[in-house]
Amino acid sequence: MTHALNETHDPGLRASVASANVDGTDFPIQNLPFGVFKRRGAHDAPRVGVAIGDQIVDIASAHEAGSFTGAAIVGAAACRTATLNALLALGPSAWSSLRLALSRLLRAPVGQVPADTAAATRCLVPMAECELVLPVAVGDYTDFYASVFHATNVGSMFRPDQPLLPNYKWVPIGYHGRASSIVVSGTPVRRPQGQARPDGATVPVFGPTRRLDYELEIGAVIGQGNPLGTPISIARAADCVFGLVLLNDWSARDVQAWEYQPLGPFLAKNFATTISPWIVTMEALAPYRTAFTRPDGDPAPLAYLDSEANRRAGALDITVEAWLQTAAMRAANEPAVRLSQANAGESGYWTAAQLVAHHTVNGCNLQSGDLLGSGTLSGPRPDQAGSLLELSMG
Amino acid sequence: MTHALNETHDPGLRASVASANVDGTDFPIQNLPFGVFKRRGAHDAPRVGVAIGDQIVDIASAHEAGSFTGAAIVGAAACRTATLNALLALGPSAWSSLRLALSRLLRAPVGQVPADTAAATRCLVPMAECELVLPVAVGDYTDFYASVFHATNVGSMFRPDQPLLPNYKWVPIGYHGRASSIVVSGTPVRRPQGQARPDGATVPVFGPTRRLDYELEIGAVIGQGNPLGTPISIARAADCVFGLVLLNDWSARDVQAWEYQPLGPFLAKNFATTISPWIVTMEALAPYRTAFTRPDGDPAPLAYLDSEANRRAGALDITVEAWLQTAAMRAANEPAVRLSQANAGESGYWTAAQLVAHHTVNGCNLQSGDLLGSGTLSGPRPDQAGSLLELSMG
Repeated sequence: MTHALNETHDPGLRASVASANVDGTDFPIQNLPFGVFKRRGAHDAPRVGVAIGDQIVDIASAHEAGSFTGAAIVGAAACRTATLNALLALGPSAWSSLRLALSRLLRAPVGQVPADTAAATRCLVPMAECELVLPVAVGDYTDFYASVFHATNVGSMFRPDQPLLPNYKWVPIGYHGRASSIVVSGTPVRRPQGQARPDGATVPVFGPTRRLDYELEIGAVIGQGNPLGTPISIARAADCVFGLVLLNDWSARDVQAWEYQPLGPFLAKNFATTISPWIVTMEALAPYRTAFTRPDGDPAPLAYLDSEANRRAGALDITVEAWLQTAAMRAANEPAVRLSQANAGESGYWTAAQLVAHHTVNGCNLQSGDLLGSGTLSGPRPDQAGSLLELSMG
Repeated sequence: MTHALNETHDPGLRASVASANVDGTDFPIQNLPFGVFKRRGAHDAPRVGVAIGDQIVDIASAHEAGSFTGAAIVGAAACRTATLNALLALGPSAWSSLRLALSRLLRAPVGQVPADTAAATRCLVPMAECELVLPVAVGDYTDFYASVFHATNVGSMFRPDQPLLPNYKWVPIGYHGRASSIVVSGTPVRRPQGQARPDGATVPVFGPTRRLDYELEIGAVIGQGNPLGTPISIARAADCVFGLVLLNDWSARDVQAWEYQPLGPFLAKNFATTISPWIVTMEALAPYRTAFTRPDGDPAPLAYLDSEANRRAGALDITVEAWLQTAAMRAANEPAVRLSQANAGESGYWTAAQLVAHHTVNGCNLQSGDLLGSGTLSGPRPDQAGSLLELSMG
């Protein structure tokens, strides 16, 4: 349902908010991502908002002002809280109705010059006056390992003879991450301490990590989940994802190398995970859906991970990038440098729908607001690696 | 603070509730574990209670009836919710005051015959009329691997040449589990489906697990946590634990063997984790504290994991057991059989305080209600193994 193109995707739409029509804006009227904001300095509870140009639509205020009618009312009413979880639990029909209403509300009437004076703009708050906070209360966070290029790059460092383990093309490999230390973009991250064993040493040392790394990922935010014991089929899985965030899976590589056997990463990862404040909805991403294919000769996914719809349009043709600007660079007015760039569709060996179907096939229950990380998105070329571990080959 | 013996531990205390004075009761007046209950068939919200004999003290009712005075009032007032999280967040001084007040309230006056007619009993609810629910909202669940015997048993199956990995005696090995699928004892667990690769096969098969297992563990419930970025020192760590639950880490061994490399167990474990409804407080366990020693020749723990108090009384001399009674056994009136028995102090290579100090040393934040599993408690003898995997050696 959320994958069909409709009037909200029309590239010709222009917004009544002038800044949303500027070339290169992150927030044109075709996007309309959801987040949660606070007015800087105010002591009010956080509020649900939608980004448009350099403004945020305060959904609860718009609802109270009577801006929504019909099917959109249910979704708008669920936004009178400090997280998006209640809206997420309503499901794709409610999300879609609210998006359509917002698109119509914020649209410049045909033939008119966009102006910030339209009716809906009475509920706009300048983004510059706001602090963006975590958009959802994350109950559980799972991180996958869905880029075959990342898995191969990392595997070749640890197991040169067998970079890709025998299960990789069958099992969407994943593990549970830490929900409590998920922070919103811009939150300072403290350099963690931990144990590491220097090369050649027999005993570990304790101290601040010497190999702090980033991992360039996208995260899928679960909309409607499932009761414990009842899997989500691949046919239904795509509709369970509300939208995507950018995700940085901070990693302390020296800690990781020493601790990760036999149960996987733990303190090397759980000191912080950063996500973007805006959730771009799967409906907004519909124009970027693309076929999902596997290289010739690779095994077909098992039946519970396979569907015609997933093959036809399960992947997303979107490019993600990581940029670095240090404090010293800022002080010297040096521009940020791009470290990583990858295409999500090209990097991913598994689609979001497959991750959902796999995660729940044993009856594990997903809940509204749960976060599924893609794993580091690395492309096929060396300069497309999504972490310093790969860019530096250790 | 919660480790000192006081009047609540006096073995001579007798309760005004007669069933609490019966030999072999789980709930004498020296225990007073906390849980959350609902009257069976009623549609009320769950209520916080404390077990005494075959009764439950409804704490909020007792509070409203004016049963608490002084320092106990703060803790009692925090029990007017459907989970223990608010009480847990108050810290050990509030827990201790409430425990002392309950002990005095439920005590039989010296020289009097215990009777169920004492003032406090007006707030008693028969356990038989109640359903016990999850005592806490678990934000994050971590499972450790703290039994060196379990680690050695399992390691010897996968790595006969090196059963115990080089990090084991330095790093309290742990990983994140799934919080959403934690259920209270008695909740039916559905046999999970998943991928497994039969011995000798090159491709996996999909179906119900053929190797469902239990893991006998105890779980530490976090009382007061820490802000992100600020570790809990070993000196403070013991006071951050509110109490212990029994824990069964259900495991699908065939799924686990196929999926667990390189990031650890995932679907093999996250379909269900069962905990006991009653949390036995660390204060109630004070009489069972015992010295924590490592075998001669083992390395000393790193400084952040070591303290004189932890060496002197960091371990617990308590025996845990797993018993099995199948539906067929019940139908034939056959008694349950004991599968496992282990001593927590003897099995554990790390204490609860060490697990807390390690978990937070990188700045990872623990929150009230978080659950830390011990990992399978296996003793040194083969018949003390805490899982079928070990008892059957695969």
